[in-house]
Amino acid sequence: MVPARFLVPAEAGLIALDWGTSALRVFRMGAHGEVLETRHRPWGIMNLPPATASAADSEPGAAFESALQDTCGDWLTAAPGLPLLACGMVGSAQGWREAKYLHTPTSLDALARGLTLVERRDGPPLHIVPGLLQQGALPNVMRGEETQVLGVLAGLALPADAPVLIGLPGTHSKWVLARRGAIEQFHTFMTGEVFAALRDHTILGKTMQAAAAPDDDAFARGLEVARGSDAALGLLSHIFSTRTLGLTGALAPTAQADYLSGLLIGHEVASLSRAQDQTPTTPQTLVLCGEPDLCRRYVVALQTHGFATPTIATQATATGLWQIALAAGLVVAPAPSSSHPFTAGSLAA
Amino acid sequence: MVPARFLVPAEAGLIALDWGTSALRVFRMGAHGEVLETRHRPWGIMNLPPATASAADSEPGAAFESALQDTCGDWLTAAPGLPLLACGMVGSAQGWREAKYLHTPTSLDALARGLTLVERRDGPPLHIVPGLLQQGALPNVMRGEETQVLGVLAGLALPADAPVLIGLPGTHSKWVLARRGAIEQFHTFMTGEVFAALRDHTILGKTMQAAAAPDDDAFARGLEVARGSDAALGLLSHIFSTRTLGLTGALAPTAQADYLSGLLIGHEVASLSRAQDQTPTTPQTLVLCGEPDLCRRYVVALQTHGFATPTIATQATATGLWQIALAAGLVVAPAPSSSHPFTAGSLAA
Repeated sequence: MVPARFLVPAEAGLIALDWGTSALRVFRMGAHGEVLETRHRPWGIMNLPPATASAADSEPGAAFESALQDTCGDWLTAAPGLPLLACGMVGSAQGWREAKYLHTPTSLDALARGLTLVERRDGPPLHIVPGLLQQGALPNVMRGEETQVLGVLAGLALPADAPVLIGLPGTHSKWVLARRGAIEQFHTFMTGEVFAALRDHTILGKTMQAAAAPDDDAFARGLEVARGSDAALGLLSHIFSTRTLGLTGALAPTAQADYLSGLLIGHEVASLSRAQDQTPTTPQTLVLCGEPDLCRRYVVALQTHGFATPTIATQATATGLWQIALAAGLVVAPAPSSSHPFTAGSLAA
Repeated sequence: MVPARFLVPAEAGLIALDWGTSALRVFRMGAHGEVLETRHRPWGIMNLPPATASAADSEPGAAFESALQDTCGDWLTAAPGLPLLACGMVGSAQGWREAKYLHTPTSLDALARGLTLVERRDGPPLHIVPGLLQQGALPNVMRGEETQVLGVLAGLALPADAPVLIGLPGTHSKWVLARRGAIEQFHTFMTGEVFAALRDHTILGKTMQAAAAPDDDAFARGLEVARGSDAALGLLSHIFSTRTLGLTGALAPTAQADYLSGLLIGHEVASLSRAQDQTPTTPQTLVLCGEPDLCRRYVVALQTHGFATPTIATQATATGLWQIALAAGLVVAPAPSSSHPFTAGSLAA
């Protein structure tokens, strides 16, 4: 890609925010959607910094403004006209402003049309991407992952009606079925949060010791238990073997966390596999988007269950926010080449 | 039953101890195995009181002796010859003295022959019942439940080779297959501890509110999800619906804990049902032993899955300790009627 500074004024682009429960990640993006700079702060919506002098404590959203200033105040000052677009739990009831849920299936355009606007005293407003709600006997919700999915889809070259299965492993793993640029259906598994709760708040953690490196054999052993001849006993029984294998000297303390991880991820992927067997759609394209170590684990688990080998997506959130900003007209698509620097703006006007 | 005081000297009998991780329950038992008095203290092995002056801090087991004195020192003084028999985590590596594990299948006699003896400076020794270990790809252990099972079996009138399935719901639920007075096989489900970890240490607890009374409808709804048309999605997915049904106004905050309880117990019983389908033994007799409210929940869950209606056992631990004390010769069986007060002692000699 041609460096942005040769094509557009320095201030053009977007400040994109991935604002979750426990962390805030911000991207300064250039006029072509390229990430110029990334910053990471612990200012999740449940962990905001104290309000600064410039934003009175009494003002609604003061703590959010304070986090924003602390994280990228210099960007806002240097380029005061840059639009701001955020996704994630910042749009929840506990966030800066509650953003609506759209119902699945949802397209990129529908998300772009549904932005929630938060006026700011000293600068351009913040726009927040809607969350997604899937109604049903077991409803499902997401905030932030819809943007990652759009980012993943933007990077794929596929026939228009080819279904794609996108896995977003993490605290709450999401598995999303997308087609024709729209999110059709998704499932949530609380795998990451359950792992942490079991490790930190049950007897299973008492015998665990930290390992110097991931124990892939222990992880694979957990995967195998989740799908092997004792699969019928289920998760609530399997996890106890983390302790009993330790008590009988068959699983080292340093291997127990990875074994438990294998059990849980194995159960998640087994459930996904069963759910896929019950749906008429069989996606041939599989994409993972998440922390590298976690994606590595899911690749092994997916292979164990006969899924196609997934590709790994990167920068999906920034790309997704850019796609939404484009569709919403917050930014304009640049010219396809440097010889037509103003065409895109004209087309988008 | 004829009151013990008319048949035997006042000091005859047993002090029986159910000594677990978080609590100590003691029973003063008469010469016929009847419970004369029960006391309950929070002196679980992980929560012992400070050592008293009569037991020097430096002495091994001083804190255990101190708990014993605090709980039933008056009984020990009034009848210094009474034997002491304990079961539970007091025999674990973190207990007063580590008691061996016996391997399944295990009979009453094997348990009685395997008692661990703890000498005490100022009185009779404490005997500790062995734990049980079931070897295999997924080993299983118990400490204390083996005694409850023997207590349950002592109360049943069954053909000698009739298999019995005994459920012991709790922090770690045990399901035990017994036959001919022996424990043949058992499974463990971490249902109770997982429920507490999810409620107290994940996002699911954030929206829960305490209910004035158990919400049986919410519990039944959770049971139904665990076995219904969305069963394939599995536990890690189902539990997230506790939150999303709340977010969509379909589950009141006061109903969420019971719904989650239904999901978890439903998954436990579904797993038990699958495991039973894979074994050649189909017990027609089903017994539950545990807290009344918990047993009530399991009765409903078992019925939902087509199990026979269970009977509820009470006083199983005291009865089991008595049976083991008899088999070990710590106490002698009394005469079958008051006209032969000394026969039983002769028979047992």
